[in-house]
Amino acid sequence: MRIDIVTGFPKIVEAPLSESMIKVASRNEAVKIVIHDTRVYTTDKHRSIDDYPYGGGPGMVLKIEPIVKSMDCIFETIDQKSAKIIMPSPRGKKLEQSDITKLSLLQHLVFVCGHYKGIDERIHELYPIEEYSVGDYILSSGEIAALVMIDAIIRLLPGVLGDIDSAWTDSFSDHLLDAPYYTRPENFRDVRVPEVLLSGNHKEIEEWRRNIREKQTRERRPDLFQKYKKQ
Amino acid sequence: MRIDIVTGFPKIVEAPLSESMIKVASRNEAVKIVIHDTRVYTTDKHRSIDDYPYGGGPGMVLKIEPIVKSMDCIFETIDQKSAKIIMPSPRGKKLEQSDITKLSLLQHLVFVCGHYKGIDERIHELYPIEEYSVGDYILSSGEIAALVMIDAIIRLLPGVLGDIDSAWTDSFSDHLLDAPYYTRPENFRDVRVPEVLLSGNHKEIEEWRRNIREKQTRERRPDLFQKYKKQ
Repeated sequence: MRIDIVTGFPKIVEAPLSESMIKVASRNEAVKIVIHDTRVYTTDKHRSIDDYPYGGGPGMVLKIEPIVKSMDCIFETIDQKSAKIIMPSPRGKKLEQSDITKLSLLQHLVFVCGHYKGIDERIHELYPIEEYSVGDYILSSGEIAALVMIDAIIRLLPGVLGDIDSAWTDSFSDHLLDAPYYTRPENFRDVRVPEVLLSGNHKEIEEWRRNIREKQTRERRPDLFQKYKKQ
Repeated sequence: MRIDIVTGFPKIVEAPLSESMIKVASRNEAVKIVIHDTRVYTTDKHRSIDDYPYGGGPGMVLKIEPIVKSMDCIFETIDQKSAKIIMPSPRGKKLEQSDITKLSLLQHLVFVCGHYKGIDERIHELYPIEEYSVGDYILSSGEIAALVMIDAIIRLLPGVLGDIDSAWTDSFSDHLLDAPYYTRPENFRDVRVPEVLLSGNHKEIEEWRRNIREKQTRERRPDLFQKYKKQ
Protein backbone atom coordinates (compact mmCIF):
# COMPACT_ATOMS: atom_id res chain seq x y z
CA MET A 1 0.00 0.00 0.00
CA ARG A 2 1.08 3.56 -0.65
CA ILE A 3 -0.13 6.39 1.60
CA ASP A 4 0.37 10.08 0.79
CA ILE A 5 -0.33 12.68 3.45
CA VAL A 6 -0.96 16.31 2.54
CA THR A 7 -0.41 18.53 5.57
CA GLY A 8 0.76 21.94 6.70
CA PHE A 9 2.11 20.34 9.90
CA PRO A 10 4.33 17.45 8.80
CA LYS A 11 5.96 17.07 12.22
CA ILE A 12 2.66 15.98 13.74
CA VAL A 13 2.65 12.89 11.56
CA GLU A 14 6.34 12.20 10.92
CA ALA A 15 7.42 10.88 14.31
CA PRO A 16 4.33 8.75 15.09
CA LEU A 17 4.64 7.13 11.66
CA SER A 18 8.24 6.16 12.38
CA GLU A 19 7.50 4.20 15.57
CA SER A 20 6.43 0.77 16.71
CA MET A 21 4.14 -1.18 14.37
CA ILE A 22 4.24 1.41 11.57
CA LYS A 23 8.02 1.39 11.62
CA VAL A 24 7.92 -2.38 11.17
CA ALA A 25 5.37 -2.08 8.36
CA SER A 26 7.57 0.40 6.48
CA ARG A 27 10.63 -1.76 6.98
CA ASN A 28 8.72 -4.80 5.65
CA GLU A 29 7.61 -2.71 2.68
CA ALA A 30 3.99 -3.44 3.57
CA VAL A 31 3.44 0.31 3.27
CA LYS A 32 5.23 3.29 1.80
CA ILE A 33 4.28 6.60 3.38
CA VAL A 34 5.07 9.94 1.72
CA ILE A 35 4.42 13.21 3.57
CA HIS A 36 3.80 16.39 1.57
CA ASP A 37 4.37 19.70 3.34
CA THR A 38 1.92 22.22 1.86
CA ARG A 39 4.02 25.11 3.16
CA VAL A 40 6.50 24.33 0.38
CA TYR A 41 3.87 25.57 -2.09
CA THR A 42 3.17 28.94 -0.52
CA THR A 43 4.27 32.05 -2.34
CA ASP A 44 4.09 34.86 0.22
CA LYS A 45 7.01 35.77 2.43
CA HIS A 46 5.38 34.45 5.63
CA ARG A 47 4.65 31.10 3.93
CA SER A 48 1.09 31.25 5.21
CA ILE A 49 -1.12 28.26 4.61
CA ASP A 50 -4.20 29.83 6.23
CA ASP A 51 -6.29 32.98 5.89
CA TYR A 52 -9.47 34.59 7.25
CA PRO A 53 -12.83 33.15 6.14
CA TYR A 54 -14.90 35.02 3.57
CA GLY A 55 -18.09 36.30 5.19
CA GLY A 56 -16.38 36.79 8.54
CA GLY A 57 -16.49 34.76 11.69
CA PRO A 58 -13.84 33.43 14.07
CA GLY A 59 -11.09 30.94 13.20
CA MET A 60 -8.77 30.47 10.25
CA VAL A 61 -9.27 28.48 7.05
CA LEU A 62 -6.61 26.55 5.12
CA LYS A 63 -5.93 28.09 1.71
CA ILE A 64 -6.71 25.91 -1.26
CA GLU A 65 -3.70 26.65 -3.44
CA PRO A 66 -0.88 25.01 -1.41
CA ILE A 67 -3.06 21.91 -0.99
CA VAL A 68 -3.95 21.60 -4.66
CA LYS A 69 -0.31 22.08 -5.63
CA SER A 70 0.66 19.23 -3.29
CA MET A 71 -1.99 17.07 -4.91
CA ASP A 72 -0.71 18.00 -8.39
CA CYS A 73 2.69 16.80 -7.28
CA ILE A 74 1.29 13.42 -6.11
CA PHE A 75 -0.75 12.87 -9.26
CA GLU A 76 2.10 13.77 -11.56
CA THR A 77 3.58 10.33 -10.99
CA ILE A 78 0.54 8.34 -9.84
CA ASP A 79 -2.76 7.89 -11.61
CA GLN A 80 -5.47 9.76 -9.69
CA LYS A 81 -8.01 7.12 -10.68
CA SER A 82 -6.17 4.46 -8.70
CA ALA A 83 -6.16 6.57 -5.53
CA LYS A 84 -8.80 7.05 -2.85
CA ILE A 85 -8.64 10.60 -1.47
CA ILE A 86 -9.66 10.82 2.17
CA MET A 87 -10.29 13.80 4.41
CA PRO A 88 -10.84 13.39 8.14
CA SER A 89 -13.71 15.73 8.97
CA PRO A 90 -16.45 15.98 11.59
CA ARG A 91 -18.91 16.09 8.67
CA GLY A 92 -17.76 12.74 7.32
CA LYS A 93 -19.14 9.24 7.64
CA LYS A 94 -18.60 8.00 11.16
CA LEU A 95 -15.61 5.71 10.99
CA GLU A 96 -16.13 2.06 11.94
CA GLN A 97 -13.92 -1.00 11.86
CA SER A 98 -15.67 -2.20 8.68
CA ASP A 99 -14.53 0.99 6.87
CA ILE A 100 -10.99 0.34 8.05
CA THR A 101 -11.13 -3.21 6.69
CA LYS A 102 -12.31 -1.96 3.29
CA LEU A 103 -9.67 0.79 3.11
CA SER A 104 -6.93 -1.69 4.07
CA LEU A 105 -7.57 -3.55 0.79
CA LEU A 106 -6.81 -0.55 -1.44
CA GLN A 107 -3.52 0.19 -3.19
CA HIS A 108 -3.24 3.93 -2.74
CA LEU A 109 -4.67 6.31 -0.14
CA VAL A 110 -4.18 10.07 -0.07
CA PHE A 111 -4.99 11.80 3.22
CA VAL A 112 -5.73 15.52 3.06
CA CYS A 113 -5.51 16.99 6.56
CA GLY A 114 -7.63 19.91 7.68
CA HIS A 115 -6.47 22.14 10.51
CA TYR A 116 -8.08 25.04 12.42
CA LYS A 117 -11.61 25.54 10.96
CA GLY A 118 -10.86 23.31 7.97
CA ILE A 119 -9.97 23.58 4.30
CA ASP A 120 -11.45 25.95 1.71
CA GLU A 121 -14.59 24.09 0.63
CA ARG A 122 -13.73 24.30 -3.06
CA ILE A 123 -11.36 21.35 -2.59
CA HIS A 124 -14.48 19.17 -2.95
CA GLU A 125 -15.23 20.60 -6.38
CA LEU A 126 -11.72 19.81 -7.57
CA TYR A 127 -11.36 16.24 -6.25
CA PRO A 128 -13.63 13.36 -5.33
CA ILE A 129 -13.00 13.14 -1.58
CA GLU A 130 -14.37 10.70 0.98
CA GLU A 131 -14.81 12.34 4.36
CA TYR A 132 -14.59 10.26 7.53
CA SER A 133 -15.27 11.38 11.08
CA VAL A 134 -13.23 9.54 13.71
CA GLY A 135 -15.79 10.55 16.35
CA ASP A 136 -18.25 13.20 17.55
CA TYR A 137 -15.70 15.64 18.95
CA ILE A 138 -13.63 18.45 17.51
CA LEU A 139 -9.89 18.35 16.89
CA SER A 140 -7.72 21.30 15.90
CA SER A 141 -5.60 18.90 13.91
CA GLY A 142 -6.86 16.72 11.08
CA GLU A 143 -3.36 15.22 11.17
CA ILE A 144 -4.20 13.42 14.40
CA ALA A 145 -7.39 12.01 12.90
CA ALA A 146 -5.35 10.84 9.90
CA LEU A 147 -2.94 9.11 12.30
CA VAL A 148 -5.91 7.28 13.83
CA MET A 149 -7.03 6.01 10.42
CA ILE A 150 -3.52 5.11 9.27
CA ASP A 151 -2.70 3.18 12.46
CA ALA A 152 -5.97 1.24 12.23
CA ILE A 153 -5.45 0.47 8.51
CA ILE A 154 -1.79 -0.51 8.65
CA ARG A 155 -2.27 -3.10 11.38
CA LEU A 156 -4.51 -5.03 8.99
CA LEU A 157 -1.95 -5.17 6.16
CA PRO A 158 -0.40 -8.61 5.53
CA GLY A 159 2.82 -9.18 7.47
CA VAL A 160 2.40 -6.30 9.90
CA LEU A 161 1.01 -7.87 13.05
CA GLY A 162 3.32 -10.61 14.28
CA ASP A 163 0.27 -12.82 14.44
CA ILE A 164 -2.65 -11.78 12.26
CA ASP A 165 -4.97 -13.84 14.48
CA SER A 166 -4.41 -11.03 16.95
CA ALA A 167 -6.76 -8.93 14.81
CA TRP A 168 -9.52 -11.53 14.78
CA THR A 169 -9.92 -11.41 18.54
CA ASP A 170 -10.20 -7.61 18.50
CA SER A 171 -13.07 -5.70 19.96
CA PHE A 172 -15.72 -5.06 17.25
CA SER A 173 -14.52 -7.88 14.97
CA ASP A 174 -17.55 -9.94 16.08
CA HIS A 175 -19.55 -7.18 17.85
CA LEU A 176 -18.08 -8.13 21.24
CA LEU A 177 -15.53 -6.17 23.22
CA ASP A 178 -12.21 -7.96 23.65
CA ALA A 179 -11.41 -9.97 26.80
CA PRO A 180 -9.15 -8.65 29.55
CA TYR A 181 -5.54 -9.82 29.34
CA TYR A 182 -2.91 -10.57 31.96
CA THR A 183 0.81 -11.23 31.78
CA ARG A 184 3.66 -11.97 34.18
CA PRO A 185 4.15 -11.80 37.12
CA GLU A 186 1.36 -13.99 38.55
CA ASN A 187 1.24 -11.90 41.68
CA PHE A 188 1.80 -8.15 41.59
CA ARG A 189 1.34 -6.15 44.79
CA ASP A 190 -1.00 -8.90 46.01
CA VAL A 191 -3.25 -8.78 42.97
CA ARG A 192 -3.28 -12.18 41.27
CA VAL A 193 -4.02 -13.35 37.76
CA PRO A 194 -7.38 -15.24 37.57
CA GLU A 195 -6.73 -18.94 38.34
CA VAL A 196 -8.39 -20.21 35.18
CA LEU A 197 -5.77 -18.53 32.97
CA LEU A 198 -3.03 -20.51 34.71
CA SER A 199 -4.92 -23.81 34.46
CA GLY A 200 -3.71 -24.83 31.01
CA ASN A 201 -7.27 -25.95 30.25
CA HIS A 202 -7.87 -24.31 26.91
CA LYS A 203 -11.56 -25.12 26.76
CA GLU A 204 -12.18 -23.48 30.15
CA ILE A 205 -10.06 -20.48 29.23
CA GLU A 206 -12.00 -19.98 26.02
CA GLU A 207 -15.29 -20.24 27.88
CA TRP A 208 -14.12 -17.78 30.55
CA ARG A 209 -13.07 -15.27 27.91
CA ARG A 210 -16.33 -15.64 25.97
CA ASN A 211 -18.39 -15.13 29.15
CA ILE A 212 -16.50 -12.06 30.23
CA ARG A 213 -16.67 -10.59 26.72
CA GLU A 214 -20.43 -11.07 26.64
CA LYS A 215 -20.87 -9.66 30.15
CA GLN A 216 -18.74 -6.56 29.53
CA THR A 217 -20.34 -5.87 26.16
CA ARG A 218 -23.83 -6.20 27.64
CA GLU A 219 -22.98 -3.82 30.49
CA ARG A 220 -20.85 -1.26 28.68
CA ARG A 221 -22.11 -1.28 25.11
CA PRO A 222 -25.71 -2.52 24.95
CA ASP A 223 -25.85 -1.19 21.36
CA LEU A 224 -23.09 -3.58 20.26
CA PHE A 225 -24.58 -6.42 22.28
CA GLN A 226 -27.81 -6.13 20.31
CA LYS A 227 -25.87 -6.57 17.06
CA TYR A 228 -24.06 -9.57 18.51
CA LYS A 229 -27.33 -11.25 19.54
CA LYS A 230 -28.77 -10.74 16.06
CA GLN A 231 -25.87 -12.50 14.34
CA MET B 1 -3.95 22.17 33.45
CA ARG B 2 -1.33 19.50 33.96
CA ILE B 3 -1.29 16.40 31.75
CA ASP B 4 0.88 13.37 32.45
CA ILE B 5 1.23 10.68 29.80
CA VAL B 6 2.40 7.18 30.70
CA THR B 7 3.66 5.39 27.58
CA GLY B 8 6.16 2.86 26.31
CA PHE B 9 6.38 4.83 23.04
CA PRO B 10 7.12 8.43 24.02
CA LYS B 11 8.15 9.46 20.50
CA ILE B 12 4.60 8.89 19.24
CA VAL B 13 3.34 11.70 21.49
CA GLU B 14 6.36 14.00 21.84
CA ALA B 15 6.45 15.59 18.41
CA PRO B 16 2.68 16.07 17.89
CA LEU B 17 2.49 17.71 21.34
CA SER B 18 5.20 20.21 20.35
CA GLU B 19 3.40 21.55 17.28
CA SER B 20 0.81 24.12 16.27
CA MET B 21 -1.93 24.84 18.84
CA ILE B 22 -0.45 22.63 21.57
CA LYS B 23 2.90 24.37 21.23
CA VAL B 24 1.13 27.69 21.74
CA ALA B 25 -0.79 26.32 24.75
CA SER B 26 2.43 25.15 26.40
CA ARG B 27 4.14 28.46 25.70
CA ASN B 28 1.17 30.33 27.25
CA GLU B 29 1.36 28.00 30.24
CA ALA B 30 -2.26 27.00 29.65
CA VAL B 31 -1.03 23.41 29.93
CA LYS B 32 2.04 21.60 31.20
CA ILE B 33 2.58 18.18 29.62
CA VAL B 34 4.91 15.59 31.16
CA ILE B 35 5.69 12.37 29.31
CA HIS B 36 6.74 9.28 31.29
CA ASP B 37 8.60 6.56 29.42
CA THR B 38 7.69 3.24 31.05
CA ARG B 39 10.77 1.59 29.53
CA VAL B 40 12.83 3.47 32.11
CA TYR B 41 11.25 1.22 34.75
CA THR B 42 12.03 -2.13 33.18
CA THR B 43 14.59 -4.38 34.86
CA ASP B 44 15.51 -7.01 32.28
CA LYS B 45 18.32 -6.53 29.84
CA HIS B 46 16.03 -6.17 26.78
CA ARG B 47 14.00 -3.48 28.58
CA SER B 48 10.81 -5.26 27.58
CA ILE B 49 7.53 -3.60 28.42
CA ASP B 50 5.38 -6.41 27.00
CA ASP B 51 4.99 -10.17 27.45
CA TYR B 52 2.78 -13.06 26.30
CA PRO B 53 -0.76 -13.29 27.70
CA TYR B 54 -1.55 -15.84 30.38
CA GLY B 55 -3.93 -18.44 29.02
CA GLY B 56 -2.45 -18.19 25.53
CA GLY B 57 -3.73 -16.49 22.41
CA PRO B 58 -2.16 -14.15 19.88
CA GLY B 59 -0.78 -10.67 20.57
CA MET B 60 1.31 -9.13 23.34
CA VAL B 61 0.21 -7.52 26.61
CA LEU B 62 1.84 -4.57 28.36
CA LYS B 63 3.41 -5.55 31.69
CA ILE B 64 1.96 -3.92 34.75
CA GLU B 65 5.14 -3.16 36.68
CA PRO B 66 6.72 -0.47 34.46
CA ILE B 67 3.37 1.29 34.27
CA VAL B 68 2.71 1.25 38.00
CA LYS B 69 6.23 2.49 38.68
CA SER B 70 5.63 5.41 36.33
CA MET B 71 2.40 6.17 38.19
CA ASP B 72 4.24 5.99 41.54
CA CYS B 73 6.62 8.58 40.19
CA ILE B 74 3.76 10.93 39.20
CA PHE B 75 1.93 10.56 42.51
CA GLU B 76 5.06 11.10 44.56
CA THR B 77 4.77 14.83 43.94
CA ILE B 78 1.08 15.21 43.06
CA ASP B 79 -1.93 14.11 45.08
CA GLN B 80 -3.62 11.19 43.36
CA LYS B 81 -7.02 12.41 44.58
CA SER B 82 -6.74 15.57 42.52
CA ALA B 83 -6.02 13.62 39.33
CA LYS B 84 -8.33 11.96 36.84
CA ILE B 85 -6.71 8.85 35.40
CA ILE B 86 -7.79 8.11 31.84
CA MET B 87 -7.16 5.14 29.59
CA PRO B 88 -8.14 5.18 25.92
CA SER B 89 -9.68 1.77 25.28
CA PRO B 90 -12.21 0.25 22.88
CA ARG B 91 -14.11 -0.92 25.99
CA GLY B 92 -14.51 2.62 27.29
CA LYS B 93 -17.35 5.10 27.17
CA LYS B 94 -17.72 6.37 23.64
CA LEU B 95 -16.07 9.79 23.61
CA GLU B 96 -18.27 12.79 22.76
CA GLN B 97 -17.69 16.52 22.74
CA SER B 98 -19.53 16.86 26.07
CA ASP B 99 -16.92 14.56 27.73
CA ILE B 100 -14.18 16.73 26.28
CA THR B 101 -15.80 19.85 27.71
CA LYS B 102 -16.01 18.26 31.19
CA LEU B 103 -12.42 17.03 31.09
CA SER B 104 -11.20 20.45 29.98
CA LEU B 105 -12.35 21.89 33.32
CA LEU B 106 -10.14 19.61 35.44
CA GLN B 107 -6.75 20.46 36.92
CA HIS B 108 -4.83 17.26 36.37
CA LEU B 109 -5.22 14.45 33.85
CA VAL B 110 -3.10 11.32 33.66
CA PHE B 111 -3.28 9.34 30.41
CA VAL B 112 -2.23 5.71 30.57
CA CYS B 113 -1.64 4.42 27.05
CA GLY B 114 -2.28 0.83 26.04
CA HIS B 115 -0.46 -0.68 23.07
CA TYR B 116 -0.73 -4.02 21.23
CA LYS B 117 -3.51 -6.05 22.93
CA GLY B 118 -3.65 -3.68 25.92
CA ILE B 119 -2.42 -3.44 29.50
CA ASP B 120 -2.45 -6.17 32.15
CA GLU B 121 -6.01 -5.92 33.49
CA ARG B 122 -4.87 -5.61 37.13
CA ILE B 123 -4.14 -1.93 36.51
CA HIS B 124 -7.88 -1.41 37.16
CA GLU B 125 -7.62 -2.96 40.62
CA LEU B 126 -4.79 -0.64 41.56
CA TYR B 127 -6.18 2.68 40.26
CA PRO B 128 -9.59 4.19 39.57
CA ILE B 129 -9.41 4.59 35.81
CA GLU B 130 -11.93 6.08 33.40
CA GLU B 131 -11.85 4.38 30.03
CA TYR B 132 -12.84 6.25 26.89
CA SER B 133 -13.21 4.89 23.39
CA VAL B 134 -12.42 7.40 20.64
CA GLY B 135 -14.46 5.29 18.19
CA ASP B 136 -15.52 1.79 17.14
CA TYR B 137 -12.28 0.75 15.49
CA ILE B 138 -9.04 -0.78 16.72
CA LEU B 139 -5.72 1.01 17.04
CA SER B 140 -2.39 -0.59 17.80
CA SER B 141 -1.43 2.54 19.68
CA GLY B 142 -3.31 3.97 22.66
CA GLU B 143 -0.90 6.89 22.29
CA ILE B 144 -2.72 8.04 19.16
CA ALA B 145 -6.07 7.88 20.95
CA ALA B 146 -4.55 9.91 23.79
CA LEU B 147 -3.39 12.51 21.24
CA VAL B 148 -6.97 12.74 19.98
CA MET B 149 -8.28 13.44 23.49
CA ILE B 150 -5.48 15.86 24.40
CA ASP B 151 -5.87 17.89 21.19
CA ALA B 152 -9.63 18.13 21.70
CA ILE B 153 -9.24 19.12 25.38
CA ILE B 154 -6.45 21.66 24.98
CA ARG B 155 -8.25 23.69 22.33
CA LEU B 156 -10.94 24.44 24.93
CA LEU B 157 -8.50 25.79 27.54
CA PRO B 158 -8.64 29.55 28.11
CA GLY B 159 -6.19 31.49 25.96
CA VAL B 160 -5.45 28.69 23.51
CA LEU B 161 -7.65 29.42 20.51
CA GLY B 162 -6.92 32.88 19.14
CA ASP B 163 -10.65 33.47 19.28
CA ILE B 164 -12.61 31.26 21.67
CA ASP B 165 -15.77 31.99 19.67
CA SER B 166 -14.21 29.69 17.10
CA ALA B 167 -15.16 26.78 19.38
CA TRP B 168 -18.79 27.86 19.68
CA THR B 169 -19.41 27.51 15.96
CA ASP B 170 -17.90 23.99 15.95
CA SER B 171 -19.70 20.96 14.67
CA PHE B 172 -21.55 19.24 17.57
CA SER B 173 -21.61 22.32 19.82
CA ASP B 174 -25.32 22.75 18.98
CA HIS B 175 -25.94 19.36 17.31
CA LEU B 176 -25.35 20.83 13.86
CA LEU B 177 -22.35 20.21 11.65
CA ASP B 178 -20.26 23.29 10.98
CA ALA B 179 -20.71 25.39 7.83
CA PRO B 180 -18.31 25.18 4.88
CA TYR B 181 -15.63 27.86 4.82
CA TYR B 182 -13.84 29.67 2.03
CA THR B 183 -10.83 31.96 1.93
CA ARG B 184 -8.82 33.87 -0.67
CA PRO B 185 -8.54 33.87 -3.65
CA GLU B 186 -12.13 34.54 -4.80
CA ASN B 187 -11.51 32.57 -7.96
CA PHE B 188 -9.31 29.50 -7.98
CA ARG B 189 -9.06 27.46 -11.18
CA ASP B 190 -12.47 28.83 -12.16
CA VAL B 191 -14.18 27.75 -8.95
CA ARG B 192 -15.63 30.78 -7.19
CA VAL B 193 -16.54 31.55 -3.60
CA PRO B 194 -20.36 31.73 -3.13
CA GLU B 195 -21.52 35.28 -3.86
CA VAL B 196 -23.33 35.73 -0.57
CA LEU B 197 -20.07 35.45 1.41
CA LEU B 198 -18.67 38.44 -0.53
CA SER B 199 -21.82 40.53 -0.06
CA GLY B 200 -20.93 42.04 3.32
CA ASN B 201 -24.56 41.45 4.36
CA HIS B 202 -24.09 39.77 7.73
CA LYS B 203 -27.70 38.82 8.15
CA GLU B 204 -27.79 37.03 4.82
CA ILE B 205 -24.47 35.31 5.50
CA GLU B 206 -25.72 34.05 8.84
CA GLU B 207 -28.89 32.77 7.24
CA TRP B 208 -26.95 31.06 4.44
CA ARG B 209 -24.68 29.35 6.96
CA ARG B 210 -27.59 28.23 9.14
CA ASN B 211 -29.42 26.78 6.12
CA ILE B 212 -26.43 24.88 4.85
CA ARG B 213 -25.65 23.55 8.33
CA GLU B 214 -29.20 22.27 8.71
CA LYS B 215 -29.22 20.77 5.23
CA GLN B 216 -25.87 18.98 5.60
CA THR B 217 -26.71 17.69 9.07
CA ARG B 218 -30.08 16.37 7.89
CA GLU B 219 -28.47 14.60 4.93
CA ARG B 220 -25.29 13.32 6.51
CA ARG B 221 -26.12 12.80 10.15
CA PRO B 222 -29.86 12.29 10.64
CA ASP B 223 -29.11 11.11 14.22
CA LEU B 224 -27.65 14.52 15.12
CA PHE B 225 -30.42 16.33 13.29
CA GLN B 226 -33.01 14.62 15.51
CA LYS B 227 -31.23 15.96 18.60
CA TYR B 228 -31.09 19.43 17.07
CA LYS B 229 -34.82 19.41 16.34
CA LYS B 230 -35.61 18.37 19.91
CA GLN B 231 -33.68 21.29 21.44
